[in-house]
Formats: sequence, C-alpha cells, structure tokens
Amino acid sequence: MTEEKTEIIAMNVDMTCDQNCLSCERFFDCDNPVREKVYDRSRMARVRERMAHIKHKIAVLAGKGGVGKSLCASNIAAELAQRGRSVGLLDNDYDGPCIPKMFGVRDKKLIMTKEGIRPVEGHLGVKVVSMGLITPEEESLTWFHELRRNATEEFFGHVNFGDLDYLILDLPPGTSSDAINMMLYLPDLDGVVAVTMPMMISQIVVKKAILLTQKAKLPVLGVIENMSGFACPKCGDEFDILLGGGGEMLAKETNVPFLGKIPIDPVLSKGSDEGKPFVMTHPDSAAGKAMKRIVDQLEKAVGWRS
Amino acid sequence: MTEEKTEIIAMNVDMTCDQNCLSCERFFDCDNPVREKVYDRSRMARVRERMAHIKHKIAVLAGKGGVGKSLCASNIAAELAQRGRSVGLLDNDYDGPCIPKMFGVRDKKLIMTKEGIRPVEGHLGVKVVSMGLITPEEESLTWFHELRRNATEEFFGHVNFGDLDYLILDLPPGTSSDAINMMLYLPDLDGVVAVTMPMMISQIVVKKAILLTQKAKLPVLGVIENMSGFACPKCGDEFDILLGGGGEMLAKETNVPFLGKIPIDPVLSKGSDEGKPFVMTHPDSAAGKAMKRIVDQLEKAVGWRS
Repeated sequence: MTEEKTEIIAMNVDMTCDQNCLSCERFFDCDNPVREKVYDRSRMARVRERMAHIKHKIAVLAGKGGVGKSLCASNIAAELAQRGRSVGLLDNDYDGPCIPKMFGVRDKKLIMTKEGIRPVEGHLGVKVVSMGLITPEEESLTWFHELRRNATEEFFGHVNFGDLDYLILDLPPGTSSDAINMMLYLPDLDGVVAVTMPMMISQIVVKKAILLTQKAKLPVLGVIENMSGFACPKCGDEFDILLGGGGEMLAKETNVPFLGKIPIDPVLSKGSDEGKPFVMTHPDSAAGKAMKRIVDQLEKAVGWRS
Repeated sequence: MTEEKTEIIAMNVDMTCDQNCLSCERFFDCDNPVREKVYDRSRMARVRERMAHIKHKIAVLAGKGGVGKSLCASNIAAELAQRGRSVGLLDNDYDGPCIPKMFGVRDKKLIMTKEGIRPVEGHLGVKVVSMGLITPEEESLTWFHELRRNATEEFFGHVNFGDLDYLILDLPPGTSSDAINMMLYLPDLDGVVAVTMPMMISQIVVKKAILLTQKAKLPVLGVIENMSGFACPKCGDEFDILLGGGGEMLAKETNVPFLGKIPIDPVLSKGSDEGKPFVMTHPDSAAGKAMKRIVDQLEKAVGWRS
C-alpha cells in the first residue's frame, strides 16, 4: 500500500457563519444580504455622525511593518497643516504606536469631556489620537480581535475631532483585525496610501495590503517607496542600500499610481526620534521635496478644494 | 458649572472572565487556579508530544515590524545547519510570511501524510513550514484571533518535524495574538531573541515585546541590533544611517544580554531577495561574522551539547 499524500492548500480551521458580521473575517468576501442588515443595525450610526464632520480621510497602510508608515503619516499630516488645512492624525496601531514620539506629543494626555474624547494638539495644530497616549510606553498591550474592534469603534465614534479638512490614519502591519476594522467603519474613506521599501521581499507583503483594499472596494491613492537610495555624506555618491527596484513595479502590477520615492537620510531618522516631521525641519531636503510632491498628488486625487 | 474632564487612562472595553483561558488576552496576567485546569484539558497534549522531539526552541520576536526578524531567523537557522545541527524553521507570520522567499523555498509545497504535515526541505536540509507555502503570494489573508490560534496549534501539533536539534520560530510584529499563542503552546521555549534597529522609535516598541516575554516568564536570550551602520562602498567611510544608539541601551534597560550588531550591506538585501541567507553566501562579511558570534552565544545560552 502506498503512503497517502495530499498537497495542503488550506489550513484546517472552522469558518462557519454565525451572522456576527462585524466580527467576521470574510466581511469583504461575503455577498449574503444578511450582511448589510447586521452591519446597519450595529453601532455604525455614531461613527458615521462623527466622521461626517471630516472632509477627507486617508489611511496609510502597508501590510508590512517597518517600511515607514508612521513616518509618512506624520509628514503627510504636517505638510497638509503647513498648507493651512485643519488636520487630524489617528494612530490605529495598538501594540506598537509610534505617532506620539514621532509627532512630539508623547508627554500629553487624552482627556474625556462631555463632548467626547479630546485629541491632544501637536505641531501646527494637528489633532493627535493614539493608544500610546493612554497606555504607558513601558507596558505591552495584548488585545485580540474584539477588543481591537471596540477600540477602533471608540476612536472613530467617540473622539471629538470637530470639523476637519483631513484625517490621516496610521495603520499597523498586517491584513487582519486592524486593517479590516478601519475599512469596515470607514466605508467613505477617500483611499489608502501604500508604503513599501525597495526590496522584492517588501513588495510581496505590501501587495497583499493593496489587494485587500481593492477587495474592500476602496481606492488605492498610490504607492510610496521609502528608504530609496542613500547619498554618501562624504563623497556624494548615491547607493541603493536596499536593492530591489520595487515601488514603481508594485504600482504597475496592482494598477495604482506611483507617488514617489523618499531617500534615506540620517537627518530624517534623527528628526523622527526628536518628534518633528522632516517637512517642517528640512522642507528643502530631497525627502522634504518628495513628500510635498506626494501631498500635491494626494490633494489632487481626493479633489481638494478649500 | 465647569466642564467635566477626566484624563483617559484605559479604553472602555469589556474584559470579563468566561473561563475560556486558551483564548484569553490576560493569560499571562492571571493567577486564577482555573487557568491551569482549562489549559491542561485543552489539546495541548498533541503539541507537547510533537515538541518533545525537538531539543531546543528559539523564537525571533520584535513587536515591531521590518526590523529584520525573518532575516535573523533565516540566518540563525542556516548557521546552525552549517554546524551540522538538524534544524527546523517555522514561519509564524500568517499575514505577511517572508520565510519562503528568504529561504529559497517559495515554489515548494507542504504535503499531508499519515504522519502529519511534512515540512519542505530548504538549504542544508533545514525543514521549513510557512503559511506562505499554503496560500498563494497573490492573495491577502484575513484571520482574527481564533483562526490564528487554530493555525498555530496545527503548526505545532500536526507538523512532523521528526527529531530536531533546533526549531527556530519567526514571529510577526505585535504583542497580541501570534506572540501570545506561541508562548501559550511552547511553555518549554528555550527563549526569545529580540531584534531591533538603532533608532529610539524602534526601541520603544521592541521593549514591549521583551516585557511581554518576561511577563510570560520565558527567557530573553538577547538583543540583536540590525541595520547598524553603513560603509560607503566607494570611499569606505562608515555612517550611522539610522541614528539612535539603541540596541545596546535596550539590552541594558531590560537587563538581557546584547548579542551583537549587524551592519547594513546592499549585498545582504540582494541575498534575501535571491533566497539565500548571507551566512551561506558571504560568511566572511562583517554581517556574516556578526551572525556567527550571535549563534555562538545562542548555543551557549541554551546549553548546546551534541
């Protein structure tokens, strides 16, 4: 008797329907009419009401970690504020929130008022909300799906941003809980900005985030390639430190716009550690100029008019 | 009447006990005696039986994404195999698995046999298991906690690694589902290797992963600082591309050993894209030598004897 062998094409996990749509992994795969009923019965109304005060919502997503999502989100928010827009910056990362440090508000606290959670005010009047303003830096947070969904609902439905031109959302790595929750609660999102690094290994993962966004029928506003090339401060020669080729290729493959490349610059990493976006401290650096061109394209894509 | 204002120190989320310990966020915070009973009643026996065949288990963790966890895991596995050890490499990242590409096995498939899931064989006979060997690269995966836990149990309890000297686990970013599941199912883990980048912003998040490991009463074998410095290929001058100082400081702060620094080298990123660990292709590079010193320390820490 020969040995029984089968190629594994799926994991042996149960995914039966319990009509608990808000907590379902397959929300964006599903076409059951029950879905819409359950979705509307839920506490979406409060979120919708708050979010109606915000003209444009842009999420910075990657699927992959460490590609520079928080760096891009901070700089997009600061550049928009420099143009006179009223801006909110919502850190959607619960386990590893970076926005408080990157945006220089780590010592401030969120306050509960009768009108809801009051965001802290950062550079240029940007209104910042982050789990990092609630839990101490010296503590690890462990939350599974339901708590993450609750927290996202709290942030979207209870924070009193007031009237805003833009809300920039910084998402954590992954294509599961936090990405899905954001898309679920913000069906009127203007779109997603995908951040990648030049290496191939990064494209594979970032592509998954783009595919998820497209599955949720939300627009992908474009791809940013971060950490792209390094100019030697001594001899001036330019090097591709992280070889690959990637961001432009990824944009082409997924049929979305390529927004630009942000070069590596030691000064920029110092800026992040000191809590000031480089569009404020080094607007004329190669990275500063690249970020301005990116924001030009984003404003055009969402149809900005003051 | 003055406005009612309260500083927010916790999110408004429900965490009541339903004695479903295997799915509980607070497993490592809890001292209820019920916990151990539920834990033992569960399907742990199968995992224990499989894992008893593996002498040493080391998890590569960071909390933060993009710091080089998969790079370190691949190179530690390859270096151990070069020393003649029998090694398994388990990719615990479901949303963004990188091991298949990094270890050059992306075209191979997992097979189900009567003896369980058969790992694919990579360089030097390393036995590789990854979600990336099951789901296509062109698909995004969305799983919330319970499916992630089930998949982890499948990987730990159903994969037929046979007898191994070492199992190296590559964990995804975050301090929630996947980190907790790994610690829950592998109480006899030899320890965790934490990977960080030099910037302060990275330390804040990686520290959370170290604190979680310590809360779970598992050993932290040490900290690796990745992407540490860049030597200009033209003029030879060395630069700290990502300023900060960090890995050594983090090790000191959390009272764990500092294992070493891995410099940035364009050749290494090319190696990852081509699917070969640099300890194999460039054993005499600065990074190759650093990795060997790291593996020396790990073997000493787990008390390796052949």
